[in-house]
Amino acid sequence: MKLAEAREVLARANRMIANEGVLDAFGHVSMRHPGDPGRYLLSRSRAPELVQPDDILEFTLDSQPVKPTDVRLYGERVIHGGIYQARPDVNAVCHHHAPSILPFCISGSDLKPVYHLGATLGEKVPFWDARDEFGDTNLIVAKPEEGASLARALGPHWIVLMRRHGATVAGVSLEELTFRTIYTARNAALQIHAHTLGHVSPLNANETRLAGEYNLRPGPVMRAWEYWNVRLDKAEGTWRGQKSPARSPKKPARTSKPKSKTKRRR
Amino acid sequence: MKLAEAREVLARANRMIANEGVLDAFGHVSMRHPGDPGRYLLSRSRAPELVQPDDILEFTLDSQPVKPTDVRLYGERVIHGGIYQARPDVNAVCHHHAPSILPFCISGSDLKPVYHLGATLGEKVPFWDARDEFGDTNLIVAKPEEGASLARALGPHWIVLMRRHGATVAGVSLEELTFRTIYTARNAALQIHAHTLGHVSPLNANETRLAGEYNLRPGPVMRAWEYWNVRLDKAEGTWRGQKSPARSPKKPARTSKPKSKTKRRR
Amino acid sequence: MKLAEAREVLARANRMIANEGVLDAFGHVSMRHPGDPGRYLLSRSRAPELVQPDDILEFTLDSQPVKPTDVRLYGERVIHGGIYQARPDVNAVCHHHAPSILPFCISGSDLKPVYHLGATLGEKVPFWDARDEFGDTNLIVAKPEEGASLARALGPHWIVLMRRHGATVAGVSLEELTFRTIYTARNAALQIHAHTLGHVSPLNANETRLAGEYNLRPGPVMRAWEYWNVRLDKAEGTWRGQKSPARSPKKPARTSKPKSKTKRRR
Amino acid sequence: MKLAEAREVLARANRMIANEGVLDAFGHVSMRHPGDPGRYLLSRSRAPELVQPDDILEFTLDSQPVKPTDVRLYGERVIHGGIYQARPDVNAVCHHHAPSILPFCISGSDLKPVYHLGATLGEKVPFWDARDEFGDTNLIVAKPEEGASLARALGPHWIVLMRRHGATVAGVSLEELTFRTIYTARNAALQIHAHTLGHVSPLNANETRLAGEYNLRPGPVMRAWEYWNVRLDKAEGTWRGQKSPARSPKKPARTSKPKSKTKRRR
Repeated sequence: MKLAEAREVLARANRMIANEGVLDAFGHVSMRHPGDPGRYLLSRSRAPELVQPDDILEFTLDSQPVKPTDVRLYGERVIHGGIYQARPDVNAVCHHHAPSILPFCISGSDLKPVYHLGATLGEKVPFWDARDEFGDTNLIVAKPEEGASLARALGPHWIVLMRRHGATVAGVSLEELTFRTIYTARNAALQIHAHTLGHVSPLNANETRLAGEYNLRPGPVMRAWEYWNVRLDKAEGTWRGQKSPARSPKKPARTSKPKSKTKRRR
Repeated sequence: MKLAEAREVLARANRMIANEGVLDAFGHVSMRHPGDPGRYLLSRSRAPELVQPDDILEFTLDSQPVKPTDVRLYGERVIHGGIYQARPDVNAVCHHHAPSILPFCISGSDLKPVYHLGATLGEKVPFWDARDEFGDTNLIVAKPEEGASLARALGPHWIVLMRRHGATVAGVSLEELTFRTIYTARNAALQIHAHTLGHVSPLNANETRLAGEYNLRPGPVMRAWEYWNVRLDKAEGTWRGQKSPARSPKKPARTSKPKSKTKRRR
Repeated sequence: MKLAEAREVLARANRMIANEGVLDAFGHVSMRHPGDPGRYLLSRSRAPELVQPDDILEFTLDSQPVKPTDVRLYGERVIHGGIYQARPDVNAVCHHHAPSILPFCISGSDLKPVYHLGATLGEKVPFWDARDEFGDTNLIVAKPEEGASLARALGPHWIVLMRRHGATVAGVSLEELTFRTIYTARNAALQIHAHTLGHVSPLNANETRLAGEYNLRPGPVMRAWEYWNVRLDKAEGTWRGQKSPARSPKKPARTSKPKSKTKRRR
Repeated sequence: MKLAEAREVLARANRMIANEGVLDAFGHVSMRHPGDPGRYLLSRSRAPELVQPDDILEFTLDSQPVKPTDVRLYGERVIHGGIYQARPDVNAVCHHHAPSILPFCISGSDLKPVYHLGATLGEKVPFWDARDEFGDTNLIVAKPEEGASLARALGPHWIVLMRRHGATVAGVSLEELTFRTIYTARNAALQIHAHTLGHVSPLNANETRLAGEYNLRPGPVMRAWEYWNVRLDKAEGTWRGQKSPARSPKKPARTSKPKSKTKRRR
């Protein structure tokens, strides 16, 4: 994938996740630079729903802009840099404050996979409390050591809850990240309503592993990716009617493909 | 109904149910082939909101495509084939993961008819747990024996809950199926909120039977069908204003009519 | 108000209440005939969101169509006729199954005014259970004696809850009815959420009477009426931009005015 | 800022807050006159979603219109005048009945900052009950002494809950007010859902102060302001596509800037 294409698809991922109600004025989505694993791409400071390809800037892994700039940058970009440093297998990161996830960050209740699509949470959801290491703060993850601490809490997992703040999600590809971000938010809402009914019976570890692997294959991930793309087009007024495309859909072809070279995802 | 018409109406049913919030990127709607009860129609693998007539393929009742194809197919089509095999009276099937139904699949709480339109649940809602027969799985119903097991669990009923997964709904016609799918999801949401208030007093067996029969007559079913059609037109930008049509509405005439030859539905 | 104008405004009220999420495929809104108190106006059987002026028919107070017709009629029109017979002060009626109201119909919990706009519930909300008088039924109010029973349960009040079915709301004018229907549904949702927090402290009888009188004056009622009209125009694509009209707004002038001749509403 | 510009931005703030679901047919937003601290600007009586620059009138701090007018005025404008009299540091006020805030006004449960953006609630949220001082009323704040009482309850804080009625929010600028109004409503919804899960662990006083200061800086406030502006443009059909503007965004430049001269906001 070339840089121009990466900028376009990353901008769309920002808008897609916002369009599905997971991001609002705040939060951000990044991806590792397609040509240089020592850099990542992230928008200038702007609400994700508004992000355009021209807004996407390049950063080093210590979260400094590659080219000097006087535009306003996200204060929390160390979240992204910290994870890309610690996790070579991660190629995309989303930080958000989804309405369905926050109640778990506030109550401290365990977020668990409660249906097959929620298995994308993975087998463990770590909980990070900035207060443990840094005492009373403004809850913002802005210093390099805070980003590194959060990355340590994430460890080998795929989502970390942040006490009274939000969540940070990782993926091996931008499409996988989008899938995990949206379906873990949906899972959280379902868990709250199941809790209301009195009893939550989550997937066990085996089911979580098996359902996670099944749903993160390219087929399901790209099916959902096409769907969110069309919904974004509808919301932005760029949808040209539901003509059935040639059998090999064009939309996902315009975007990057999930990394499917590792055995694990097969 | 001819095949071309069936494809069009089935594609619309996919999009209508999605437009009402019951289906998202996943789930699917099928109907029995109008000219051959030994076949059924189902889309290639695609989010229901995007399904077009050209996407609809023919399958044998053991869920093999009638014509060889290299397009991606739904992994769970045995859900449909299994039910069409077991239930000659069923002509349409929907598998979904509606946000209001899932809390019952997760908590194991009984889903019950709590208002007249929810009586379309029928007198009993079976609960199927793949783990009972198949142990730990990825929760996906992809093998013929899994489809057959689910069909046995459905038995003579009209909806079956699937543990930590979703629901599968059946109907004697596509319109009835659409009606039952949407109103059982609405019923589930109401039951959750009534539970929140402290007490759920469902319909008794007599009321369920009487209200179910009343609401599944052609009149109510086609009234709702016209409504969901117009709402879909609004969402897709194909609505041409709310001109009152000639007294015999055109929309439902374009679509198939509910099977009303059996005494039972009169 | 002439008949043609009444038909137009009644059709709009159906669509406005549907557009605010209180009505769906079912439910209906009627008004007393502006020129003949012995008749009322009601749509043919059609989802409220679709109702157009041409759909509006005239009925006698025993709910027979004034002119013979072969169009399908609402099965529950005796709800309207029964109330117009029993309550000469009522000029508009809405029957609905709002998602926020149904939990009270299902749980039997008392619906109470919990904020000033909810005071339009009035000081008492009667609860009608068809089973008390008629035993097990399909829950539909279709027979004249059922309509009369419901009207007796309503008595001198303004809204009656119907067990496992829905609610019926009355108003001295179509605009007041619209206001009461929407704000009592909003009040119900607030009460459910306040209950979730642990304690519901409703308005007392004095506050209910005072706030009800204040909010049902022409000023507040027409302010909300203009608002719901514009929102309907936006939803139907007929909105022509938010130009500030001449200081005496045109929209409400096109519609009937609340009856304001009685001292009680001053 | 000139008066014409103030009228335009105030009208937009009314529509933006309505577009985010915090205001409905009722509620209102005002700002202090940009050229005369002894006056304030407020719309004539109209639903906030409909307010246009021409609707904005000038009022003295005792809530009398500066120019005689025969248009209908908001009955509760003393809420605004009372606060502008008592609080010279306040330049914008919003009174609303947001669905997420009302459950706290009804139940009496404490509304607390539960995430960093909710820290805009401030360290204390006073609770005002009109009944304490005025006995049974229609709950409307229409008399000067009622407005003064509410302003006393607000004291040096930024939001006051009004028993069985709603909330009133203050800001040092219109943009800060918009930010606080929307994010305190979001915070309330999160608190309800966290409560459902069983335990609410709010920010402590230090975190509240630090996170409040951080998020009320011009950067975050204007980032959200741009976002809500674009969303309003989309809703009103005036959005011209998501072209990335020159790096210094035009939208916020059209509107007033947050007061950033005080050290406190830096």
